[in-house]
Amino acid sequence: MAVIVQKYGGTSVADLEKIQNIAKRVIRTRNDGNDVVVVLSAMAGETNRLIQMADSASGGAPDEREYDVLVSSGEQISVSLLSIILHRMGCKAISLLGHQVKILTDKIYSDARILSVDTGLISDALKKGKIVVVAGFQGVDEEGNITTLGRGGSDTSAVAIAASLKADFCEIFTDVDGVYTTDPNLYSKARKLKKVSYDEMLSLAGAGAKVLHPRSVELAKMYEVPVYVRSSFNEDRGTLVTREDKDMEREVVSGVAYDRDQAKITVVHVPDKPGIAARLFTPLSEHNIIVDMIIQNASSEGYTDMTFTVSQKDIGEARRLLDVVARDMGASRIDYDENISKISIVGVGMQSHSGVASKMFEVFAEEGINILMISTSEIKISCVIAVKYTELAVRVLHDAFGLEQEN
Amino acid sequence: MAVIVQKYGGTSVADLEKIQNIAKRVIRTRNDGNDVVVVLSAMAGETNRLIQMADSASGGAPDEREYDVLVSSGEQISVSLLSIILHRMGCKAISLLGHQVKILTDKIYSDARILSVDTGLISDALKKGKIVVVAGFQGVDEEGNITTLGRGGSDTSAVAIAASLKADFCEIFTDVDGVYTTDPNLYSKARKLKKVSYDEMLSLAGAGAKVLHPRSVELAKMYEVPVYVRSSFNEDRGTLVTREDKDMEREVVSGVAYDRDQAKITVVHVPDKPGIAARLFTPLSEHNIIVDMIIQNASSEGYTDMTFTVSQKDIGEARRLLDVVARDMGASRIDYDENISKISIVGVGMQSHSGVASKMFEVFAEEGINILMISTSEIKISCVIAVKYTELAVRVLHDAFGLEQEN
Repeated sequence: MAVIVQKYGGTSVADLEKIQNIAKRVIRTRNDGNDVVVVLSAMAGETNRLIQMADSASGGAPDEREYDVLVSSGEQISVSLLSIILHRMGCKAISLLGHQVKILTDKIYSDARILSVDTGLISDALKKGKIVVVAGFQGVDEEGNITTLGRGGSDTSAVAIAASLKADFCEIFTDVDGVYTTDPNLYSKARKLKKVSYDEMLSLAGAGAKVLHPRSVELAKMYEVPVYVRSSFNEDRGTLVTREDKDMEREVVSGVAYDRDQAKITVVHVPDKPGIAARLFTPLSEHNIIVDMIIQNASSEGYTDMTFTVSQKDIGEARRLLDVVARDMGASRIDYDENISKISIVGVGMQSHSGVASKMFEVFAEEGINILMISTSEIKISCVIAVKYTELAVRVLHDAFGLEQEN
Repeated sequence: MAVIVQKYGGTSVADLEKIQNIAKRVIRTRNDGNDVVVVLSAMAGETNRLIQMADSASGGAPDEREYDVLVSSGEQISVSLLSIILHRMGCKAISLLGHQVKILTDKIYSDARILSVDTGLISDALKKGKIVVVAGFQGVDEEGNITTLGRGGSDTSAVAIAASLKADFCEIFTDVDGVYTTDPNLYSKARKLKKVSYDEMLSLAGAGAKVLHPRSVELAKMYEVPVYVRSSFNEDRGTLVTREDKDMEREVVSGVAYDRDQAKITVVHVPDKPGIAARLFTPLSEHNIIVDMIIQNASSEGYTDMTFTVSQKDIGEARRLLDVVARDMGASRIDYDENISKISIVGVGMQSHSGVASKMFEVFAEEGINILMISTSEIKISCVIAVKYTELAVRVLHDAFGLEQEN
């Protein structure tokens, strides 16, 4: 008998009919002879309703502790509804909230990290033949205050529970049926991957693919939890996210990702002294602005340019912070460019294959696509280009690396 | 510095504007130099939304444990919203749910009784100068399952917290501004009482006045918690519910109550043997049907009639149960009458004043109102009459006992 953790997102529990469909799938999994733990998000629409309430009540900056109390009521509704439906279908089920499980977190409200999961109540209920329905996205701190996990929180809950239970695997049900070589909406030749490694999944997520939140993948990697990304609307097995194996080595490039949500900032003609990077980036990190690609070109006559990218939503605040710092540092000006896109190719195989990067650059050159920035890691090469070339770049790279065919 | 527990019902927290008004009142109470604990119901409408969800999900009989998980999310929303608004107004506040407080109950889902209230967290927060906002209506059993308290639950939560904290008093804010000599909607001469005893309040509630649920009054009486019944929409001091004092003895009759929600059942010509009452009423109590007034007339030639009243909502099930029992007992038939009303006069003074009952009967006789049943207690006399005489009976009794003027 396998132990399986199944996570369903907000669109999968959007209304009672969809929750009934989930109930049927859960019961099927159970009847196949498995112990099933279900992790749910709030019903789509419910979280927005609660967030709007908080915004109206607070004028935009609600007290952090109370905000988490408010929004965590969303999963309370979805888990109790699924449990009620499972009972109606003749199946013993029990809902457990974050504080009941208990999912212990730090006390960073709205962005808490899971410290531990107590599996006692879950295991007891499974032993009694019950289906356990756990509220995702929420936990409690040591003092019993309710916390929520921030973006991708329910995925993280599911993987953390699977890790703690030593479950056989974790299934993340979503509105796409797996991980693709690239976005199928952007290129019809995109192919669904049967397997992808944790590191590739992390690189794809970091490169703009929104299937799984990096936090859940990191956790899955750390505890070696096999994760299936599947659709809740069909029976396809989906994509297995797992550790690297020999099969994977054959795939030089697994996917092409793009991210149009980036903005490029160049601080021009900065006196090149020790500590300038720290002076530039410390205020940004203090305001939780994540800097992605960073390039510092060679110093010329004691001056240098610093170029980096941030998320478009952060550009306003970054501008406010940098205007002050750059003036203090003696930079001549700051350039901003929001019309850019980051194109990345990802694959564990590129570690042992040379020529992947140069092939990427050649393809761009043939199409007349100018490369504005380049950054590389062991399993990823990213180029910043003008946003208008996004679709073209994805398609020509997908063709050039033969991603349409299974290797 | 006094400790005050304020409870606001669903209509008082129906929308953000109303919650803002509550916040202002709470802050005023605090600024007057008091420690304030607020107990809230769910927003009006929210509970109905959740109950409808449960009904749709279950087809009408939701799993009891999960039903309580679902509906308790309602108070979670109202307490966090009030706390958010209090913070916005510059006031330190903390919400506490039933499991956080912790309000320990038995495990009768949807109708749980409070066993104890842990005041540790509340006292700590008050010491830190915070306003404490507690979710009414909900608790946890010993195993940490969420329970709800059933009708009048938030009133009961407030009184239980006031008792445990040894609060100076408890204020129940509602949509009426106090306890009246009779229903002001029915008789414009109704007068608001400044004070009423716990026992009178219980008798009034049992006689149909819906201001406070009997459970909360019983608890207030047991722990001698002074309770003010007040309106959340004005500044009137309301009615103080307290123990009897010498002031009260002067009021022979404090109020006239009516209850149109009763039905009369007569089991006709039953062989009069020991145990017939038990045989009749045991099945009803097993199905949680509350029997109110019971009359058994004198046996005649070994046969008797049993007449009693039940709530109109229970008449269908009562009929189903009694048809079987009455046949077994050899009764000749059962009569049902739903067109009745129970009229009661209540007052601690009637214990030491004779002639109250006969005056009531005289008044009815003068108006040609036929009395169908009579029942009396130390501080209450109730008569069942035809429902069409309800308004007339209330008004003539109110006049006859001079309730318009303060004694």
